[in-house]
Amino acid sequence: MIFTFMVLPLDLLEVSLNRDVSLLLKDGRILNGKLVGYDQHMNLVLDDAREEKENEERRLGRIVVRGSNIVSIALI
Amino acid sequence: MIFTFMVLPLDLLEVSLNRDVSLLLKDGRILNGKLVGYDQHMNLVLDDAREEKENEERRLGRIVVRGSNIVSIALI
Amino acid sequence: MIFTFMVLPLDLLEVSLNRDVSLLLKDGRILNGKLVGYDQHMNLVLDDAREEKENEERRLGRIVVRGSNIVSIALI
Amino acid sequence: MIFTFMVLPLDLLEVSLNRDVSLLLKDGRILNGKLVGYDQHMNLVLDDAREEKENEERRLGRIVVRGSNIVSIALI
Amino acid sequence: MIFTFMVLPLDLLEVSLNRDVSLLLKDGRILNGKLVGYDQHMNLVLDDAREEKENEERRLGRIVVRGSNIVSIALI
Amino acid sequence: MIFTFMVLPLDLLEVSLNRDVSLLLKDGRILNGKLVGYDQHMNLVLDDAREEKENEERRLGRIVVRGSNIVSIALI
Amino acid sequence: MIFTFMVLPLDLLEVSLNRDVSLLLKDGRILNGKLVGYDQHMNLVLDDAREEKENEERRLGRIVVRGSNIVSIALI
Repeated sequence: MIFTFMVLPLDLLEVSLNRDVSLLLKDGRILNGKLVGYDQHMNLVLDDAREEKENEERRLGRIVVRGSNIVSIALI
Repeated sequence: MIFTFMVLPLDLLEVSLNRDVSLLLKDGRILNGKLVGYDQHMNLVLDDAREEKENEERRLGRIVVRGSNIVSIALI
Repeated sequence: MIFTFMVLPLDLLEVSLNRDVSLLLKDGRILNGKLVGYDQHMNLVLDDAREEKENEERRLGRIVVRGSNIVSIALI
Repeated sequence: MIFTFMVLPLDLLEVSLNRDVSLLLKDGRILNGKLVGYDQHMNLVLDDAREEKENEERRLGRIVVRGSNIVSIALI
Repeated sequence: MIFTFMVLPLDLLEVSLNRDVSLLLKDGRILNGKLVGYDQHMNLVLDDAREEKENEERRLGRIVVRGSNIVSIALI
Repeated sequence: MIFTFMVLPLDLLEVSLNRDVSLLLKDGRILNGKLVGYDQHMNLVLDDAREEKENEERRLGRIVVRGSNIVSIALI
Repeated sequence: MIFTFMVLPLDLLEVSLNRDVSLLLKDGRILNGKLVGYDQHMNLVLDDAREEKENEERRLGRIVVRGSNIVSIALI
């Protein structure tokens, strides 16, 4: 028997709690912030969220991001 | 055992009731208003809603916003 | 214990029956009319519906609008 | 107790059977025809369907229109 | 009691088996062919399918068309 | 009683196993390859997949294609 | 009886664990990386992910990619 270790996507979110993540959204926006929560639909809660825009940042504070608009979530 | 505190997205909405929020919609619109209700699909009810448009605001009063069109919800 | 009053989205539709509403659709159209019905998917029935178009109105009579195309519903 | 009369969207389709309707589709097309059937997803069957195009009509005969592409259904 | 005869969308597909149909797809393509099968999602099987393109036809043979991409199905 | 023979979409995939198919995707891409598997969502597995591009081919090897991006599947 | 061997899409992911894959996303992006996890929605976890961009690579580290944005997954 071969056992392959696997990282479930929601488990990666679990271990990423209180760490900085970078979200790529469907409309091309990039949001950075500290991941403080999520649910099974990958709706996320970010603290100190900032939208990255060319050479500036727009500060958004605490936000809910709907999972259906997220393309990828990177640990940073 | 490690206990990680997590903020569920719907719980953040719960504590945001009667507070001002700023919604980013899929079509790029920004709606501001007081959150007075929500459901499990993240359909929201806003009071005194205003659409932010360049240098003006369009007042919309009390509105229902469908969750499927929302990208993010920020506390302001 | 803290009790927070909340307006459920479908409850707002219920109390809006027989009142004028203004719908913003996904394609940017604005439809006005008297709300005379709805279902749990937010499919709506409007009486005396009018599409707002720049400086004119197109009269549509009684219509069903599919909830999946609605961005927001404002009481007017 | 207050009783509010409500017209459910599917009930409006029921009473519209064998009457002419005008559909607005997501891609902006307008289809006219006699409604002869529907299901719970708002898939519709139209008889003598015509696509309205600027100053001409394209005759389509009997068609099934998928509910997921319909924005609104107007009685005409 | 009033009895209204209704043609269910899937029933129309049933009686259209082995007949020529014309599909309008979401991306504007038009596919013609003989309907030889369908399922409850309106995924279709066409025989001798042809894509109509301005003044030419592209022959596709036997194809499966996913229901989620279909706008309308016309009997021809 | 009339018996109409029908080809269910998934049954056509079943008999197409180990045969060459041509996929049209929602974004207009055309992928060719040998069908070696599928599931009930019409997610497909292709062997020796090639993307057709004007006058060249890009070889992709063994791939999974998500059913939700597929418009049509043709036997070739 | 004929037995046809079939590769289920999720089984291909299973055997691809710890191997390099190349993802094509709906917005045309190409992401490469080592597949280290997935779930039944085809949400994936990639290690050492890189976005391929013309003649450069953007390094993304460990990421979750939502299945709903994936067009195809190629073994490389």
